[in-house]
Amino acid sequence: MWLIRVNMTDLTSRVEPLPDAYKHLGGRGMTSTIVAKEVPPLCHPLGPNNKLVFAPGIVTGTPAPTSARVSAGAKSPLTGGIKESNGGSSWAADLADMQVRALVIEGQAKKNGKYWGLNLAWDAAAGQPKVEFFDATKYAGKDLFEVFPKVYAKFGDKISISGCGVSGEYGYGNASIVYNDPAKRPTRYSGRGGLGSVMGSKGLKLIVLSRAGTPGVAITDEALFDQGRKKMIDALRTHDITKPKGALNTYGTAVLINILNEAGGLPTRNFSSGRFEGAAKIAGEAIFEGNKQRLDKELYNHACSPGCIIQCSNTWHNPDGTEAASCVEYESDWALGANCGIDNLDDIATMIKLCNGYGLDTIETGATIGVIMEAGVIPFGDSQGAINLIHEMGKGTPLGRILGGGTAFAGKAYGMTRVPAVKGQGMPAYEPRAVKGIGITYATSTMGADHTAGYTIAPEILGVSGKQDPLTPEGKAALSRGFQAATAFIDTSGHCLFIALAILDIASGMEGMVEECNGVLGTKWTTADIGRLGAEVLKAERAFNEAAGLGKETDRIPEFMRTEPLPPHNQVFDVSDEALDSVYAEL
Amino acid sequence: MWLIRVNMTDLTSRVEPLPDAYKHLGGRGMTSTIVAKEVPPLCHPLGPNNKLVFAPGIVTGTPAPTSARVSAGAKSPLTGGIKESNGGSSWAADLADMQVRALVIEGQAKKNGKYWGLNLAWDAAAGQPKVEFFDATKYAGKDLFEVFPKVYAKFGDKISISGCGVSGEYGYGNASIVYNDPAKRPTRYSGRGGLGSVMGSKGLKLIVLSRAGTPGVAITDEALFDQGRKKMIDALRTHDITKPKGALNTYGTAVLINILNEAGGLPTRNFSSGRFEGAAKIAGEAIFEGNKQRLDKELYNHACSPGCIIQCSNTWHNPDGTEAASCVEYESDWALGANCGIDNLDDIATMIKLCNGYGLDTIETGATIGVIMEAGVIPFGDSQGAINLIHEMGKGTPLGRILGGGTAFAGKAYGMTRVPAVKGQGMPAYEPRAVKGIGITYATSTMGADHTAGYTIAPEILGVSGKQDPLTPEGKAALSRGFQAATAFIDTSGHCLFIALAILDIASGMEGMVEECNGVLGTKWTTADIGRLGAEVLKAERAFNEAAGLGKETDRIPEFMRTEPLPPHNQVFDVSDEALDSVYAEL
Repeated sequence: MWLIRVNMTDLTSRVEPLPDAYKHLGGRGMTSTIVAKEVPPLCHPLGPNNKLVFAPGIVTGTPAPTSARVSAGAKSPLTGGIKESNGGSSWAADLADMQVRALVIEGQAKKNGKYWGLNLAWDAAAGQPKVEFFDATKYAGKDLFEVFPKVYAKFGDKISISGCGVSGEYGYGNASIVYNDPAKRPTRYSGRGGLGSVMGSKGLKLIVLSRAGTPGVAITDEALFDQGRKKMIDALRTHDITKPKGALNTYGTAVLINILNEAGGLPTRNFSSGRFEGAAKIAGEAIFEGNKQRLDKELYNHACSPGCIIQCSNTWHNPDGTEAASCVEYESDWALGANCGIDNLDDIATMIKLCNGYGLDTIETGATIGVIMEAGVIPFGDSQGAINLIHEMGKGTPLGRILGGGTAFAGKAYGMTRVPAVKGQGMPAYEPRAVKGIGITYATSTMGADHTAGYTIAPEILGVSGKQDPLTPEGKAALSRGFQAATAFIDTSGHCLFIALAILDIASGMEGMVEECNGVLGTKWTTADIGRLGAEVLKAERAFNEAAGLGKETDRIPEFMRTEPLPPHNQVFDVSDEALDSVYAEL
Repeated sequence: MWLIRVNMTDLTSRVEPLPDAYKHLGGRGMTSTIVAKEVPPLCHPLGPNNKLVFAPGIVTGTPAPTSARVSAGAKSPLTGGIKESNGGSSWAADLADMQVRALVIEGQAKKNGKYWGLNLAWDAAAGQPKVEFFDATKYAGKDLFEVFPKVYAKFGDKISISGCGVSGEYGYGNASIVYNDPAKRPTRYSGRGGLGSVMGSKGLKLIVLSRAGTPGVAITDEALFDQGRKKMIDALRTHDITKPKGALNTYGTAVLINILNEAGGLPTRNFSSGRFEGAAKIAGEAIFEGNKQRLDKELYNHACSPGCIIQCSNTWHNPDGTEAASCVEYESDWALGANCGIDNLDDIATMIKLCNGYGLDTIETGATIGVIMEAGVIPFGDSQGAINLIHEMGKGTPLGRILGGGTAFAGKAYGMTRVPAVKGQGMPAYEPRAVKGIGITYATSTMGADHTAGYTIAPEILGVSGKQDPLTPEGKAALSRGFQAATAFIDTSGHCLFIALAILDIASGMEGMVEECNGVLGTKWTTADIGRLGAEVLKAERAFNEAAGLGKETDRIPEFMRTEPLPPHNQVFDVSDEALDSVYAEL
């Protein structure tokens, strides 16, 4: 097991045995531990003292289902706090199969328009991975749909790619790290928190992983691992949400559009309503039916990364049957659709593809455009205007830089008070006033407004792990705390968060996750340890944030949501500050 | 004595007797007390829950010399913390003479492009001030050099005016509140912290004070007051810096250009050097000599406000003898000159006048342009480019909005790491690496980077109140703390801070200040109380900031100043975090 340090200041690298203290860490547990330990909390996020850490999860690279996940971590230029943003891609599995448990990018190359790439490959003679630098300047300033094929052409097919788009070169707060999908497109993301800009700030454009000859992940107890894996597979294949031709496989994550709209929690036109009259036109069902019409067949979804059996990635097709965009995630669909008053899937797909090409976080982009529409720069519902705004970001114009700064930043540029963001990060597709638990997660998460940090939507809306009234604040601090801790463990394990939708209802699936981890690591964890292990990760993140100046005063929902009732339920966000503060105080 | 509350939400006002608890407060003491008590620390600074408070100082409106000062206070849209920004103008004296000790603007008018004005006048029949609203929409969107004459034309000559420029309508972080000078120009400022935008956000464009029939300030003990006043006058007329035809009266505040340049502490080209090769061309001496050449006579400076005997306000003249700009303050001269690599007084004057017309803080503007020049938007030294950038701000273009957001904001838009700002506020004209005490003031002041908050330049550079080595950090935390507390008292008294340059050396002047206050209020303060009374103000401000999320982690100098040595002394900012934290911990 290896930890690789790459120093961009002097373009050197060191391949080190993984320190004992890190042996049971993976994914978010690894990135947050290293960032909390090694990054000065008050450093400039785009300066030489920030570090960008990549870590595959504990079971990533193994046959554990739905586990080709990698965490990227750093101090975030968007929030100013610690950030972990995980994505699914063969890149994750390839890093794990190289037995690299952490890749730490340090320092900063001198800027003169020059960018570098890294190529990690297995050095069979030395029995360890090796790192080579290559000049990546020619890939800078270009659309990633142009860049990725060139990189494949240069390095061959047996590689995976991560990189930043022009957004990361510009230093935007909404710049993502982009990974290849199975069709080699630049569509899989460590999306949130501006980590693409941390990568770009270091003069690092691309990280190419060559998978030839890699030894694969060492599994300590194959039998136990296999037992766990089977339990996990059974759970995922059984649950209505995650099973083949189930909700996610049929409609993709966009199945949530109608569900949230029905619940009055689909933020519409910059969070001014919880219902969108055009919801049905952009819903997962509309994608499925639209594809059926345009392709003359039923199209079920595909995997975003190797080994996923949920397979929730959809593709939207043009009227002539060619591909428009893959994937139209719920969050992207909402952000660039309902939140902007746009109800046309073709336009939404156009915007998603542009974001992929420029390396932009679709959530942050849509939340930002919503604010800018309210500011009157373009009207709500103006698809072409919104498309043009994304091009402004791609071109790095002054307007593009305002938008690229993210929701809170753009709101400030236009003196707006209705700005849906926490710790500088734009809110995702669930309304805090209509779903109180997720509001608590937005407010208190170490990540800023992040639905994945503690997805209380499961019980509050989906009826997973019981059913709770979304409108009541009662008991929701504890609910969010529990979800945040469990999530930190799942993000550490290397599984996609969507496994939770099954294993929260199917106890054997939860056991399976822990057995998979024990099988790989030789640990003796039980499901009772999940909360504790997750809490340790959260505590490290929280400590970093407090040292970076993000104390409990930043654990708050924007003022307008406390005073402005949201249709149709006409509720405000009525969770007390005491309840918010209890989430981490009682962790 | 009156406290007036104006509610912009329903366009009503209440004239109330001044509460007993506020009877010994004035200026900054008054505004900070009211803001700390009444404004929710986490409210949106441009929302209805922020309050904008104006308060004349304790002796403002009396014959005390150099005391026509008004404090404006609110939660700052620039720093996110409490803000007091004081300016000198007849407006201050007129408010005091109306026996109004605090004017509190609350709520928010509904926006639809409509702006309001207030006219405060003395109601002789009622024996109290009265407030009238007038429609000020026609003054919106215009240069203040166009607006002010129209307001005089409407209300007559016996008025004073405060207002916000277009910058305040746009909601910029660098929008100031602008007051009339003796020649009725819009050139006197509550400059820092974006208070013009707080005014604009409330739908309030102008506040007109009609001085006819006002009763004047009540003085409790005339004899004591007069004794104090004479001591103060003697001190100001004696000290080399403040006396007639002394340093300030001859060269203006721009006398500091050569002094700081010589000390290696004049920030040049976005704080990349402490020496500017063009310093002599923009120095106060060059202004004096240039005017002499162009006017064919020696021109000494004038008062910015009634009753000032220091009279430091200069005017720069065009080659044909017409007025170019008044006043070319040291800070403006530096910000738009040395900090941008510009050494042409005519261009600097053009920029100052544009800032005045748009209502922009010249310090924030110049610090921002310095960062933007380093980002490569225009080159250092490009006067015409800089002039164009100020016009962009005036027009509210996307680039203008980036710049209007201030130094830290613009730096973020361009992904810059060398950004001279603390708590979001751009640094003034003294280099922390060359003058350690002022760096401590920048870091720890409740106001963000603010030289006036604790002007340790006096002993560190000017030899006032002793002489201290500017390059050593030793003892500077205590020095800054003492200056910050004394300053809070001076800002409360209603005197211009420049009196400190005399009374720190002349003890009887210090006594005079306290006796003036005692004379007005009937208090029994001694000079020994100054530190304690000032500290009370600072503690209220600090508590507000902490509740607003600005804890000690924000009391830091930017990272690059800790690692990048500054020519010519090649020093970094080497004050420890412990020393910084001790400033308020030991207050």
